[in-house]
Amino acid sequence: MSVLAARGFEAFGLASGIKESGAPDLALVATADRAPVSAAGVFTTNLATAAPVQVSRAHLADGRAAAVIVNSGNANAATGAGGRRNAQRMCELSAKALGCASDDVLVCSTGLIGIPLPMAPIEASVGRLASGLTSDPAGAAAAATAMLTTDTVKKESVATASMGGSLTLTVGGMAKGAAMLQPAMATMLAVLTTDVAVDPRALRVALQRAVGESFNQLTVDGCTSTNDTVLVLASGALGNHPLGFGGSGYHALTDALTAVCADLAEQMARDAEGATKFARITVVGARTVEDARRAARGVANSQLVQCSLNGQDPYWGRIISELGASGAFIDPERVDIAYGGVTVCRDGIAAEHDGEAVKAVMAARDIDILCDLHVGQSEAAMITTDLSYAYIDENAKTS
Amino acid sequence: MSVLAARGFEAFGLASGIKESGAPDLALVATADRAPVSAAGVFTTNLATAAPVQVSRAHLADGRAAAVIVNSGNANAATGAGGRRNAQRMCELSAKALGCASDDVLVCSTGLIGIPLPMAPIEASVGRLASGLTSDPAGAAAAATAMLTTDTVKKESVATASMGGSLTLTVGGMAKGAAMLQPAMATMLAVLTTDVAVDPRALRVALQRAVGESFNQLTVDGCTSTNDTVLVLASGALGNHPLGFGGSGYHALTDALTAVCADLAEQMARDAEGATKFARITVVGARTVEDARRAARGVANSQLVQCSLNGQDPYWGRIISELGASGAFIDPERVDIAYGGVTVCRDGIAAEHDGEAVKAVMAARDIDILCDLHVGQSEAAMITTDLSYAYIDENAKTS
Repeated sequence: MSVLAARGFEAFGLASGIKESGAPDLALVATADRAPVSAAGVFTTNLATAAPVQVSRAHLADGRAAAVIVNSGNANAATGAGGRRNAQRMCELSAKALGCASDDVLVCSTGLIGIPLPMAPIEASVGRLASGLTSDPAGAAAAATAMLTTDTVKKESVATASMGGSLTLTVGGMAKGAAMLQPAMATMLAVLTTDVAVDPRALRVALQRAVGESFNQLTVDGCTSTNDTVLVLASGALGNHPLGFGGSGYHALTDALTAVCADLAEQMARDAEGATKFARITVVGARTVEDARRAARGVANSQLVQCSLNGQDPYWGRIISELGASGAFIDPERVDIAYGGVTVCRDGIAAEHDGEAVKAVMAARDIDILCDLHVGQSEAAMITTDLSYAYIDENAKTS
Repeated sequence: MSVLAARGFEAFGLASGIKESGAPDLALVATADRAPVSAAGVFTTNLATAAPVQVSRAHLADGRAAAVIVNSGNANAATGAGGRRNAQRMCELSAKALGCASDDVLVCSTGLIGIPLPMAPIEASVGRLASGLTSDPAGAAAAATAMLTTDTVKKESVATASMGGSLTLTVGGMAKGAAMLQPAMATMLAVLTTDVAVDPRALRVALQRAVGESFNQLTVDGCTSTNDTVLVLASGALGNHPLGFGGSGYHALTDALTAVCADLAEQMARDAEGATKFARITVVGARTVEDARRAARGVANSQLVQCSLNGQDPYWGRIISELGASGAFIDPERVDIAYGGVTVCRDGIAAEHDGEAVKAVMAARDIDILCDLHVGQSEAAMITTDLSYAYIDENAKTS
């Protein structure tokens, strides 16, 4: 039940008609009593931010929100002042139907960029959407379905964590496809809920850490969308003394947020259209964490490495080349590279190895690649997929 | 006759047997009298530099060289100390055959990474290669052919420039495929010659400028190879007073080097295997040249934009998204985007335009995309291609 796993929330989703296909395209998550609660968001770093990102960021200035409305089928990006009015209007419509303030409503959109958002179906549907809100699991499923674009399955996750003592907090979340094989629809969105009571600033930092350890370690094509958004609302239904920074409760919250985000990120990679491989690139022995991330990202983003994965070719020469070009410090003659635990490169040159064992590693859907730089103690990992015909098919035409 | 267009040089190429296919794979360019002359190089920024890059860089420390030996079919990269010995050995063999010092010989390799360079065919062939050196145009063609890997045509270019007065200098060059659709063979190499007399330091700066305005403005997959090298030798056969920095002669040299490099870069893009499009991304109105380059590179490197080119889809939303993610400063609501002169986005939102005209632009092989950021006066351009099935085919398997 994902976004309803934490007590204190209701959700629903329906087909408003934004999508010509008639598929569900409008979702709403709200606090059960429609009152604003602690909330936080992490948004795209793209300077060409979509209208809903601008509006949600403004509405989060006070660290509180009562609801999130999400539409799929149109990104409301590169739509100028009119786009901002439309995003604002989505909040107003929701607020009116819910009986809360419009600046307590957050908004997310995902779909094609540069096309004005069709408001008529939204105007006609928000009342029905709010009326449908329920704490029944079906409501969570309807919401998770209505935020999808080219995703083939909905993505939901739940984690719990002991806060010490008898209290256990819950984090639930739903998400849609990553900036990956969803071309025209390159947005990743996630909406999380938790029942813990927490200071909004502490919640924001916890969310940033969770995103850094999950969604930011997933790459398929290196593209950062105009709409990427991760939101969390904390109902406080658990009745704990509100968490601030630090302490076992705060760490429990951070861990649970991270677990949900990491699970959703993995679900995104596994649903990447046309991808035949799911690869985890781990870099260890880097001078700094920043270097480890740069190196892992350089390998994971490489079109050439992704093509090798597609062809099940353990061509480590490309990996060492990408490590060298990544901006991270490396000494090429200290680098070890292993596929699924089989070392194919040691001290920067070819290592004797069992060719059949590597062949079996490359034939699997999940492939682990470990790069040991041997110049420090820091490490990082990235998840990626292969580059396939289907990626091109999906992205060559938007219509 | 490219690399022999400037007087004072000889060249030759042959099949030594490094390539199993039996195609030509060994080339030599030398000064006509085997004496060292002013020389300069620009090398890959990849930290995992191939052995020949390390050796050539060392041999250029004195700014002089008498010859360049090039092999294709094996990159001699990620080959450790043994690789360096082999690169050094190629110089020694050449020096012995030519009667010059081995540190006056430069060396380039291109092909698969991580496989020891087979030295037997090279040991057996360098004598014959040196004996074949000729000032006849056939020698230039043989050399240009022997440096190719998956290129389908050899790449040669010549430019002349008036130095003021009665003197006209000549620059000639040959090159092989860019770090692009040549996967396993991702190296770009270029060897240039000129007849002008010039101080080695001035020559190096002129070459750096030429490369910055040409090869560095070409991208297909954003990969920087372990072997990328551009070399120039200046025979002084023109008999001019040696050029230093500045003055009309120096500018003439820079212009001619730039013209040859730009022509070779364009030939590389046009020979990118499987590419169906040749696109020039121009960014104007940026705050700084650095910003303009970042923005143009961000658009040109984008897998999503490259897929749009492949599908002939004028989806400018992806372009504005890449501009926003590029790291360059933009105000998304001031951005204009035009395909082949037809403005499809004005002030960051969709602009009324002639759909049929844009359709015709996208159907052509050559596509010009202009992005005006309207936040400054700086500009830059990048050349790229589309992302096609053939790129994946070429790169999925190295064997």
